[in-house]
Amino acid sequence: MVARQQITPVLRRLGSTRTAANLTRLAVALPQSVSRTATARCFTTSPARLFHRTAPAAAVQGKFTSETYPDIKRDPRFAQLTPDHVTFFRDLLGSDSAVIDSVTSADAADDIEPFNTDWMRKYRGHCKLVLKPATTEDVSKILKYCNDNMLAVVPQGGNTGLVGGSVPVFDEIVINMSRMNQILDFDEVSGTLVAEAGCILEVADQFLASKGYIFPLDLGAKGSCHIGGNVSTNAGGLRLLRYGSLHGTVLGLEAVLADGTVVDDLCRLRKNNTGYDLKQLFIGAEGTIGIVTKVSIQCPQRSPAQNVAFFGLESFDHVQRAFRAAKGQLSEILSAFELMDEGSQALVRQVTGNQRPLEAEYPFYCLVETSGSNADHDAEKLQAFLEDVMDKGVVADGTLAQDETQIRALWAWREGITEALSHLGGTYKYDVSIPLKELYQLVEDTRARVDAAGLLGDSDEFPVRAVVGYGHMGDANLHLNVSTRRMDPRVEAVLEPFIYEWIAERQGSISAEHGLGVMKKKFIGYSRNPTMVGLMKGIKKTFDPNGILNPYKYL
Amino acid sequence: MVARQQITPVLRRLGSTRTAANLTRLAVALPQSVSRTATARCFTTSPARLFHRTAPAAAVQGKFTSETYPDIKRDPRFAQLTPDHVTFFRDLLGSDSAVIDSVTSADAADDIEPFNTDWMRKYRGHCKLVLKPATTEDVSKILKYCNDNMLAVVPQGGNTGLVGGSVPVFDEIVINMSRMNQILDFDEVSGTLVAEAGCILEVADQFLASKGYIFPLDLGAKGSCHIGGNVSTNAGGLRLLRYGSLHGTVLGLEAVLADGTVVDDLCRLRKNNTGYDLKQLFIGAEGTIGIVTKVSIQCPQRSPAQNVAFFGLESFDHVQRAFRAAKGQLSEILSAFELMDEGSQALVRQVTGNQRPLEAEYPFYCLVETSGSNADHDAEKLQAFLEDVMDKGVVADGTLAQDETQIRALWAWREGITEALSHLGGTYKYDVSIPLKELYQLVEDTRARVDAAGLLGDSDEFPVRAVVGYGHMGDANLHLNVSTRRMDPRVEAVLEPFIYEWIAERQGSISAEHGLGVMKKKFIGYSRNPTMVGLMKGIKKTFDPNGILNPYKYL
Repeated sequence: MVARQQITPVLRRLGSTRTAANLTRLAVALPQSVSRTATARCFTTSPARLFHRTAPAAAVQGKFTSETYPDIKRDPRFAQLTPDHVTFFRDLLGSDSAVIDSVTSADAADDIEPFNTDWMRKYRGHCKLVLKPATTEDVSKILKYCNDNMLAVVPQGGNTGLVGGSVPVFDEIVINMSRMNQILDFDEVSGTLVAEAGCILEVADQFLASKGYIFPLDLGAKGSCHIGGNVSTNAGGLRLLRYGSLHGTVLGLEAVLADGTVVDDLCRLRKNNTGYDLKQLFIGAEGTIGIVTKVSIQCPQRSPAQNVAFFGLESFDHVQRAFRAAKGQLSEILSAFELMDEGSQALVRQVTGNQRPLEAEYPFYCLVETSGSNADHDAEKLQAFLEDVMDKGVVADGTLAQDETQIRALWAWREGITEALSHLGGTYKYDVSIPLKELYQLVEDTRARVDAAGLLGDSDEFPVRAVVGYGHMGDANLHLNVSTRRMDPRVEAVLEPFIYEWIAERQGSISAEHGLGVMKKKFIGYSRNPTMVGLMKGIKKTFDPNGILNPYKYL
Repeated sequence: MVARQQITPVLRRLGSTRTAANLTRLAVALPQSVSRTATARCFTTSPARLFHRTAPAAAVQGKFTSETYPDIKRDPRFAQLTPDHVTFFRDLLGSDSAVIDSVTSADAADDIEPFNTDWMRKYRGHCKLVLKPATTEDVSKILKYCNDNMLAVVPQGGNTGLVGGSVPVFDEIVINMSRMNQILDFDEVSGTLVAEAGCILEVADQFLASKGYIFPLDLGAKGSCHIGGNVSTNAGGLRLLRYGSLHGTVLGLEAVLADGTVVDDLCRLRKNNTGYDLKQLFIGAEGTIGIVTKVSIQCPQRSPAQNVAFFGLESFDHVQRAFRAAKGQLSEILSAFELMDEGSQALVRQVTGNQRPLEAEYPFYCLVETSGSNADHDAEKLQAFLEDVMDKGVVADGTLAQDETQIRALWAWREGITEALSHLGGTYKYDVSIPLKELYQLVEDTRARVDAAGLLGDSDEFPVRAVVGYGHMGDANLHLNVSTRRMDPRVEAVLEPFIYEWIAERQGSISAEHGLGVMKKKFIGYSRNPTMVGLMKGIKKTFDPNGILNPYKYL
């Protein structure tokens, strides 16, 4: 337990004895389409199960999804693209830049490649035609034609997804939404924003910032991702604890069904109890029942004050107590509560060489962020909270960022974990949600299991270096990471299906925020029972009877 | 404009010169099943269009819904109840109290009446059988039997709805959920509550209060309504501005489909991106696609500090500016922003005789409530906000409640409006949502139209006494009320379809928070286009092919 008199020095530690610079040395080569800031966060929200190596990107790029997943076969019901099809689309969209075609022009293959491949270069399709509609009417006419001619399509936003949902598997036509990128309306009194689906999240947020508002979603890929894609994947991100999910903040949307029917549900009202809330089906549907073309969303006021504290704690029980205390005492200003275990922080330290925020090591660390309208009030609440949790021994040590640079430095200890892991070899990654009480138990049980199998150790003879856990404590969203020295089939055999079964037994989710895509299509049964999957298939059939929308994925 | 030095006396006015007692004299005879507190609020959220008079309740009770709506015919596909059916249900449910049957026993007619009639006694069915299942399995077996035998049913929670959705029209079996009233689980760290559908909202909230949490929904009928009914009607209530809609806070639910299939989607996680979010369809479906049996909901921390201020303002433009300022400066502690026009307050004053909170009269009044974790901080924020809006002339005058009694007294000026109206004669009521900018324009346009028709005036020759508006400014939810001296067909002809068309032109909602039920089934087209209604009918058909669930309503 830390006595009260120790707190002020603790709170001032970062300000007095450390420079921000030595806390922000995390940097890796990033894919060009994603901004640095963006990717730093994107890395923290990695795919549920992804063995990724530090092999050159080009080598990874070579592999087609159809090779990685040989069980997936092209659906023979779908037509092959012909020059006649291309002519139709060229006539429809007019502008040359709206059609990228390697059906009639072999030269276009290079131009098409970025649309065929996700930013991780883990998925790669065989698409030969990219269409960039400029209006909802364009989307409608494209889909009607595709539906009539049995041409499969993949809706594509910023292509920042992590499960292969936004790139083709075979020769599906990519319908890229980047030209539909306008902000259409903003009501400064209610905070309701209406924008086209291809509007980039950061653009929308910067527009809102100029009005004193904030987009109620923040995630790493904000510099590239589209709000239509965010809605279609029900993106979670960093503000969920504070602003809730898109199911609550999206007020309305416009979408085009497979047959070209435009569903105009672009409601701008917070309340509208007139029938089934259809828009909810499109939120998180990954483009399988329609293409979202416009979004209306409720935006909160921007908070001028922000604080970040970083704690060391003795056990996961202490973490839970700290979280409860933060919710109670920081209450309306709490905007993030992130969890990191010692293993994850040791890896960041090992890779970056940065000095740790706290002097001693603890089994657990938490990052607590507040966002509020009054800096003095927030500081006072935070100070009182810190004194309380330290007096009671809930928190063993802590430090508080003194400025924006230090805020970013502390966040780097959380956001840099996945990057650090990627420097050390392969990683089995699981992005899961588990009821909070047992959140960390999965890490301990997995570690014990790997250890019992003789696979975990400090020397090179053991394939597994570490089993670590971190994530969004506030959302009960855990990132379980198994860091390995080399591929070893024994490791995967120990991990799966053990982890999926463990999660299913606790009614957890095998995909907390990334969706299903290609990657987790076959795992849905661990989080949804056959009755629900059956109902979902019924909905898919109702909205897209020919199955042309984003095939080979989701269900 | 009020000079800064006037503010402190203004803020203290209630504390120094008025007793709380003279502000809380609103009281009317209330239906027994609804507590006084509950009903006071329920009255403020009245049906969208309801001409109600002060006639004795018994007289109103006499009229069957089938007489009020002669166009609705009993669906001949549904079977008539027989003693054999009753025997099946008695054998199934065991306990005598679980079956109220006037099929085989004429004596039970009186016992059945409360289940046949809504609390306003505006709707009345011909039901002869009430079933009270104790478990999900009971519900499942009941529905399977009903579906197999083409027996129509009405799911019924606390029966506090306002649109006739929870009572039968003809001889539908009432499935009353009151025996499934248990709180099943609460996670004190995450704030996740799991409870049966028949759990009364106030019971759940009191349980949560003991844990330092709050139910993220508050409404007048809390003493009677069931959380399953709240979810099924997507209840809005008083905390929506702060905690958002049930589409965001409900984490999961269990429901039974028409054929008895149990849909177990009782997820307790904030994040679960594995397939279409089916639970969203049940939220606000009014029991037409399944019966909600259990609910899992995310509950926020309870705020220990509460403040209420009451303003006078010179125009609706000033109201919008005040709302914007409140959102910006009170930000995270703002929990309600209610609007009342002078006409509505004059009626309250006329009926109650109470002294007004402010000395002068203004065209508009607002009630602003804050809820926060630190009373001092909140008071400081509120004081700064008040000084700002008064200095800038946004608010002409204001007063701040000094204690809980005064808080209730100020709320009474908002919550007492509908009661006051009901004492003065008939009222045409419209519960609507309109984009905020034009929220009050509907009242002015309606008033001008009624006036132009020569129907509005101060003396008895005019059928209309006043056209007033009030409501949840924070949710863009307006209650337009046309107070009349007597029924006059010219009034309705002037009001409709004018009001519905006015709302439709602005993409407003003809039912902001009360749902459709019997009352607004035929008006859905004003707020939803044929494409959406068609999709909704497809969903209804998928989930309830025989249409046995809550027929004659909703779509």
